[in-house]
Amino acid sequence: MTIDVARLRAGTPGTDRVLHLNHAGSSLMAAATLQAIEAQLRREAEGGSMEAGGAVAAQVEQARADIATLLGADPDEIAFTGGVSDGWGRAFAALRLRPGDKVLVGRTEWGGNLACLERAGLVVEAVPADEHGQISLEALARKLDGQVRLVALTWAPANGGLIQPAAAVGRLVRAAGVPYFIDAAQVVGQMPVDVREVGCDVLAAPARKHLRGPRGVGLLYVRRDFADRLDPAFVDTHSAPIGPDGAVLRAGARRLESAESAPALRLGLGVAVRQALDLGLDRIRATIVQRADGLRARLAAVPGVRLQDLGVERSGLVAFTLDGRSGAEVQATLATQGINLGFNGRAYTPLDMDARGLTEVLRASVSYLTTEAELDRFVAALTALGA
Amino acid sequence: MTIDVARLRAGTPGTDRVLHLNHAGSSLMAAATLQAIEAQLRREAEGGSMEAGGAVAAQVEQARADIATLLGADPDEIAFTGGVSDGWGRAFAALRLRPGDKVLVGRTEWGGNLACLERAGLVVEAVPADEHGQISLEALARKLDGQVRLVALTWAPANGGLIQPAAAVGRLVRAAGVPYFIDAAQVVGQMPVDVREVGCDVLAAPARKHLRGPRGVGLLYVRRDFADRLDPAFVDTHSAPIGPDGAVLRAGARRLESAESAPALRLGLGVAVRQALDLGLDRIRATIVQRADGLRARLAAVPGVRLQDLGVERSGLVAFTLDGRSGAEVQATLATQGINLGFNGRAYTPLDMDARGLTEVLRASVSYLTTEAELDRFVAALTALGA
Repeated sequence: MTIDVARLRAGTPGTDRVLHLNHAGSSLMAAATLQAIEAQLRREAEGGSMEAGGAVAAQVEQARADIATLLGADPDEIAFTGGVSDGWGRAFAALRLRPGDKVLVGRTEWGGNLACLERAGLVVEAVPADEHGQISLEALARKLDGQVRLVALTWAPANGGLIQPAAAVGRLVRAAGVPYFIDAAQVVGQMPVDVREVGCDVLAAPARKHLRGPRGVGLLYVRRDFADRLDPAFVDTHSAPIGPDGAVLRAGARRLESAESAPALRLGLGVAVRQALDLGLDRIRATIVQRADGLRARLAAVPGVRLQDLGVERSGLVAFTLDGRSGAEVQATLATQGINLGFNGRAYTPLDMDARGLTEVLRASVSYLTTEAELDRFVAALTALGA
Repeated sequence: MTIDVARLRAGTPGTDRVLHLNHAGSSLMAAATLQAIEAQLRREAEGGSMEAGGAVAAQVEQARADIATLLGADPDEIAFTGGVSDGWGRAFAALRLRPGDKVLVGRTEWGGNLACLERAGLVVEAVPADEHGQISLEALARKLDGQVRLVALTWAPANGGLIQPAAAVGRLVRAAGVPYFIDAAQVVGQMPVDVREVGCDVLAAPARKHLRGPRGVGLLYVRRDFADRLDPAFVDTHSAPIGPDGAVLRAGARRLESAESAPALRLGLGVAVRQALDLGLDRIRATIVQRADGLRARLAAVPGVRLQDLGVERSGLVAFTLDGRSGAEVQATLATQGINLGFNGRAYTPLDMDARGLTEVLRASVSYLTTEAELDRFVAALTALGA
């Protein structure tokens, strides 16, 4: 069974208005997702927003349960957050590491996470890459020396198609008894995820990328037993309600969740997750691989294009540079033709960019919504630009 | 010039559908606010949500500038947050107090803030109330003994109509050189606020209460020079972008802001703020006082009702109990008649509830949208219930 792309595009208002190759930045919401958000906003406006929120509490909890299903987790291990960095940061701060503590990261670690680690005064060591550009498992094993207090891995980076071997890393990290945080921003919604198999303690993702949910909401997995170790940097009436004996931290992932939320966005995320589950993550993954392979083959034939993807397994993010053209220029020119392209400088993945001598990359990122005709049109536009 | 209530109600979808007396929980959004949010969500769905966000960046910054105007601050002193507790908590965590540090609070402090202080291992002392139930300025002056590291005041509590003398407190606290945090959840949008006059270092508020903005977004004021002292518990690519020399904390309030946002909600907040500025906070305040006084007078005549408001100056929140009826029961019964009423237990304001021997209060909170006819209908329903 393949994905019925035409049907899904018909249910996605953006697909006939823009040639979207920025699914890694933010994908296109389905009409059903948009409608769920708007319906809740209207209920809020018409009946009071706290009252309207109370009325959909069970639906929000169903969304939480569906996220748990998506990740192979249990609902109490899932928190809603404001986005991937909000979730990762809350969990990181709650780990209460001390200045001087040693942390290992992959070379492709997200810049926001690196900024957290640096600002906390930690000793951050990047595990070298192997010959494929992936994190070297041998080097990781050597570096897990009993002094490491955290291993942080960005599963799929923002600047290329590489997919890190998260489960193989997890086996080493778990054996060493070290906390293991995964930034899965580019992964969740794009391919199957099983947190038990990966062996992570924390996994963060946004709604807006491959899950096709709205902006301003994210999800966070915290392994049940690991949550007990987390002491949030700040709490509220939801994460640590005051009882007869004072403030008591809530059990599970919810101790990292805020009292205030936009239920409309959580409901929208729920619809998006349900759609991903209905399509099946294996089918989504297979379709994206097929499209990304097709795009890479086309780009390889364009004069002046240099593909910049490393790794063995590849995501739907296709990174490249175009000789003699700045990324910003290419992005801006294609935007005038209704083509959305991503563009990254150094700041989001500084370790990897520096190691590879790159200062910027363009990102053409596909979804299962992407058609062969779109890839043809994009490559023709790029070819004209390079000529 | 009085407020044209009929015109404003016509532009508020909720006013003819529900008798809303829960403006202190969450007020009713204007149609224009709802439309601004929905328009942005549709732009996101149709053109890609990062692209659509970039297109309204200037409008979001205008919203920030309007919030600054509302508070008597400058735009760089304003951060967007996920809500009042999110903003207060981020600022609190960034203050990096140490276990054992002494903190003073008013008796009416919000439970979420108290939970933060308690979880951080601080020594929390409640400043006693004076004969009006307000924070005692004499007691505060005595307690500012050189050992105090923070004074936290909830300007108007969640369990009554009291308005604390925030500016008088500010004069004492500033003279003592102590950081001064204000939770203005019940104040912003209801009455004029001038952070310079109040003398606070931090002031947090949500969008959804008297400002009539959407859920899931809030605003945070951080005094410019004070922001330099704040070291956030976690950062991201927005609050501490990585440059050539590593991660550098952003100047001003934005160091407490998240990289990810829902621009739609920020735009909705912007419309709500603009409307409040256009109406004028003095006029809003005068109208609310008139309605709240009218409600208190009516309630005083209902058998079994006990008004529970303290203070000299009063907000639009009218707290009461009804003899022989639980708050949950009253709230649920009136809900079946299309009347939205608030209800608080102990957890949100534990110090004040304990000091006054209260276990729960009902809250009927008015807005400038509230009509005399609504107050009559509500009081008749309550009278029937008590009979």
